[in-house]
Order: sequence, then structure tokens, then C-alpha cells
Amino acid sequence: MNKIKAAVVGYGNIGKYVVEALEAAPDFEIAGIVRRATSVAEAGLSKYPVVSSLEQLPKVDVAILCTPSRLVEQSAVKALELGISTVDSFDIHTGIADMRARLDQVARKHNAASIISAGWDPGSDSVVRALMEVCAPKGITYTNFGPGMSMGHTVAVKAIEGVKAALSMTIPLGTGIHRRMVYIELEEGYDFEQVAAAIKSDAYFVHDETHVTRVDSVDALLDMGHGVNMVRKGVSGQTQNQRFEFNMSIDNPGLTSQILVGAARAVVRQRPGAYTMIEVPLIDFLLGDRDQLIRRLV
Amino acid sequence: MNKIKAAVVGYGNIGKYVVEALEAAPDFEIAGIVRRATSVAEAGLSKYPVVSSLEQLPKVDVAILCTPSRLVEQSAVKALELGISTVDSFDIHTGIADMRARLDQVARKHNAASIISAGWDPGSDSVVRALMEVCAPKGITYTNFGPGMSMGHTVAVKAIEGVKAALSMTIPLGTGIHRRMVYIELEEGYDFEQVAAAIKSDAYFVHDETHVTRVDSVDALLDMGHGVNMVRKGVSGQTQNQRFEFNMSIDNPGLTSQILVGAARAVVRQRPGAYTMIEVPLIDFLLGDRDQLIRRLV
Repeated sequence: MNKIKAAVVGYGNIGKYVVEALEAAPDFEIAGIVRRATSVAEAGLSKYPVVSSLEQLPKVDVAILCTPSRLVEQSAVKALELGISTVDSFDIHTGIADMRARLDQVARKHNAASIISAGWDPGSDSVVRALMEVCAPKGITYTNFGPGMSMGHTVAVKAIEGVKAALSMTIPLGTGIHRRMVYIELEEGYDFEQVAAAIKSDAYFVHDETHVTRVDSVDALLDMGHGVNMVRKGVSGQTQNQRFEFNMSIDNPGLTSQILVGAARAVVRQRPGAYTMIEVPLIDFLLGDRDQLIRRLV
Repeated sequence: MNKIKAAVVGYGNIGKYVVEALEAAPDFEIAGIVRRATSVAEAGLSKYPVVSSLEQLPKVDVAILCTPSRLVEQSAVKALELGISTVDSFDIHTGIADMRARLDQVARKHNAASIISAGWDPGSDSVVRALMEVCAPKGITYTNFGPGMSMGHTVAVKAIEGVKAALSMTIPLGTGIHRRMVYIELEEGYDFEQVAAAIKSDAYFVHDETHVTRVDSVDALLDMGHGVNMVRKGVSGQTQNQRFEFNMSIDNPGLTSQILVGAARAVVRQRPGAYTMIEVPLIDFLLGDRDQLIRRLV
């Protein structure tokens, strides 16, 4: 079997889990890990080549981009221009369609492909939302997140003066409404009530029910578990009250990394261009013989 | 907008719901209905041409096959040989992969496409099973059906001597185990206990917990509602205990017909060949501009 040669670009939390998922996937080999030049020398990576640029790796079929979302597009363009296909879990929902359009041009020009926003939301949740609309075109879908840590909200809290450490948990209240449970360590010399008020009036929190609690150690509360509850009530044809629900309870980086690896398998099967997950056949993400997969799953 | 011209082949329960779903879909027009020659003259269909053969309709893009599963392949071959794409909800799981392989040849030869087994199981449930494996490649998925009427089991009961009318309900007990609740009207002169014993020893029932109840009217119990509960616990990468669940509670012919209409939209967008739902991008089943769908759903 010709294994798919994957490069892991970025070696933070997701990058480490992607290496684990690649090691569990028999159809992949790890071509190497691309890090910032200043981090290349760091220990613990001796199993694979560690370089500061994709060009330094001999042959790469797909680059799995594990950089922060705001750095994804520049990493993708760089790889695609080398003719290397890419996958990412870019999660800024409002930027997805435009980034897809731009990367589509670059990918076609360089005869490569890109699957973007291949995490869980956007990603597998997007597939569920699309499937629910296939089943019932009229109706309302609610995506209820949590309980779990919101990266974006946590970063927003950390930016507020007087906050030493923070965790913002998302609690689903149904119909797409969420409670924010914020846990902070306070910097010395700051007043808790004033800091709490600043958090509650921040744009990230002002529209949600928000509770701020002072704790001695945020680290003692950290758990990478997350979840989602998606519900749709709608109309199939002219038949009312069709009900659909999807739930999951998962380790967040574990799931994101597995979906990235599936997308890396799928992307080498696509024609040049950029795609979101709802534009790619699900069978392309799966390991194994196509006929056998159909016999087992359909 | 160029509307998709659809022919409805077969006008039983599903065919009637497909007409309803097509009437609710702004991108379709109904080219006509194909029935057995003996049924063409039946009343109540005056809105659309009713013919006994596809060739009698002027221009058809896609034939939606609403015949019983055992007649689907011959209907599909006939349409494909006319260069007309087809969709069906063929539901004999063990026959799907082979029928797909055969129809794939016919479709390619005549420059048409076919999406087979596009109902809910096989169909939308197959998509969920595939998605769950994308998320967690190692693990076990259980598909728990019901509560709802099983067509296959009901037919099996009706075939037993002494049964005048029957209904077999499927009750989910979890981990893919089902209870069969069988309701029968007894023919005069038969002994209930003997008939019940014959049902319980039938191949359809012998491996399941089966309860047979005698009723005055089976018709008074009939309800086309059905449902499914699918669960998977598995491993993403090297992360254990990832949990996924999909539930639905639906009108059975209503959902099947809507998915068939979505498949009819998708099939005209595919290259020649035969496909199951997990081989087709979900976005192709949906009405609307691609970029707008991505903005809304991803």
C-alpha cells in the first residue's frame, strides 16, 4: 500500500493529538513536523524530522495545519503553492465561505486540494446540520454547545485587566441559548466585583447569562471534554413534526485531530479546489475498500 | 430557473408522498406519473400526465422509483437505458453493494446517474453511521429501530396460515436488540395459540423476543410513525470513550419521500455512475446557492 505522506504543521495541543491519530491510522506515514524556527530544537520529537519550513521535507502529500485559526490561511496558501494539499480546522464561522473561495483559486492553480474547517464545529456538526435539512428542508435547527470550555471566551476573559488566569465554560440551556460560567484567578490589588462587572459587560458575554466565580486555581478545573446537542423539528415534503437530534460527549482535541486525519485521507481523493466537509462524500474520509465500506455502513 | 423534470414511477404510498414533496420543492416540476397499465385510468391524478411507460413522457431528467424493492432494479435499468437518471429507496441491505455495481455499469454506458438506497435506513442512517466512524474509527455502533411498524415482519406474519390481518411493531431494547410486538386478526376456525407459536418460530421472529396479541381490528392500531436511536462509543486517534448519539422520531413515508426528492436533486449533479448516499456530497441534496448554503450550514 502506498501510504499517504502527511506533514503536521504546528505542534501545539492539536498537533500533538494529530500525531497520535496518524500513528493509529495504518494508511499514513508522518513525513515530519513543521514548527517555528525557534522551537525546532525542542526535545521530545526525535521520532520524526522537525523542520521550520515545509520545503525542508522530502515528499509531502498533505499538510495538516494545526496552527491557530488566524494563521491558517497563510499556512494553507504556502503549502498549496508548493502543490501540497492541505486540511485545517479553521473555526471562525463568519470567515469560512470567503476563505474557501480564496483557497479554491490557489488550489486549482497549483493542482492541489484543500478541505477547510474540518473539526467538529465547523466540521462534523456542519454535516449533521446539512443532513437534518436533507431530511426536513423546512424547520429550525438549534446547536447547543457544551458543557465544555470555550477557547474564544476564555481568551476574552484573560484579556481583561485584573485577570491572572481564566476559564469560561459554555453551558447549554436549549434553543441555542448558553450560560457562561467564568472562573478566574484575580491579580493582586484588583477588586473582584469590578473585574466581574468588566467581564459581564464585554462583547463576548453581554448577551448571555454570565456568572463569574473567583477560584484559587483555574488549572485545577481544566478538562478538555466538550459536547453538543443538536435538534431539528421540521417538515419533510408536506409532513409536519419530524424530529431529529444529535448528541455527543467528547474529548475536544481528540475529536478535532481525528477528523483532520480523515480529511487528510479525503483531500488526496479530491479534484483540485477547496472544499468544506459538506462538499465531500463521507466515504472519502474512511479507511478501507469502498465496496466493503458500502456493505458495512449503508 | 431550469426546473428538474421528475417522473414518479409507482404510485403507492411512497409515490403519493413523493408527489407532495415535489410540489413543495420549488426547483422541480412533475413530468408525469408512471403506473401499471391496469391502473392508469384510476381517478385522482388529473393534475399530472399518467402513463404506463417512461417513454410516453416527453422529457424526463430523473425517475423517482417508488416501486417495491424487489422491482427497483428492473425499473432502474429501464430508465437508465433511456438515459434517464434514477433514485430509489431500495432497502434490502444485503443486496445494495451488488445492485450498485450492476447499475453503475448500466448508468455509465448510458451517460446517466443513479443514487440507490436513498431512504432513511439505508439512507440518512447510513450517513450517520459513516460520520460516526469518521469521528471515531474504532468502536461499536448500535442502530436501534422503532418504535414503529416493520414492513418486512408484517408481511412475514401475514403469510402465516390463520392470520387474517397483521401488524408487527419493532421495539428498541438497546445494543441493536429488538422486541417484536405482533398484533393479529385471526381467521375463523384457527386456534390462536397454534398461530402464535407458528409466528414465533418463523425465521423472522425466532431470534427475537416476540409477543403475539389477538385484536379485533389491526387497522385501528396502524400508525406510520417510526424512529431510530443510533449510538457509538469509540476511539478518536488514541482518545477513548468518545460518545455519539443520533435520534429521530418521524413519519416513515414522509421522510423517505423527502430524501428521495433530495437525491433526485443530487443525482443530476453527479457524473455517470451509481452511488449510495455516503458517496455523494450532502450539499448536492440541498436546494439553493452553494455559497449561501456554506455560509448558513458550515
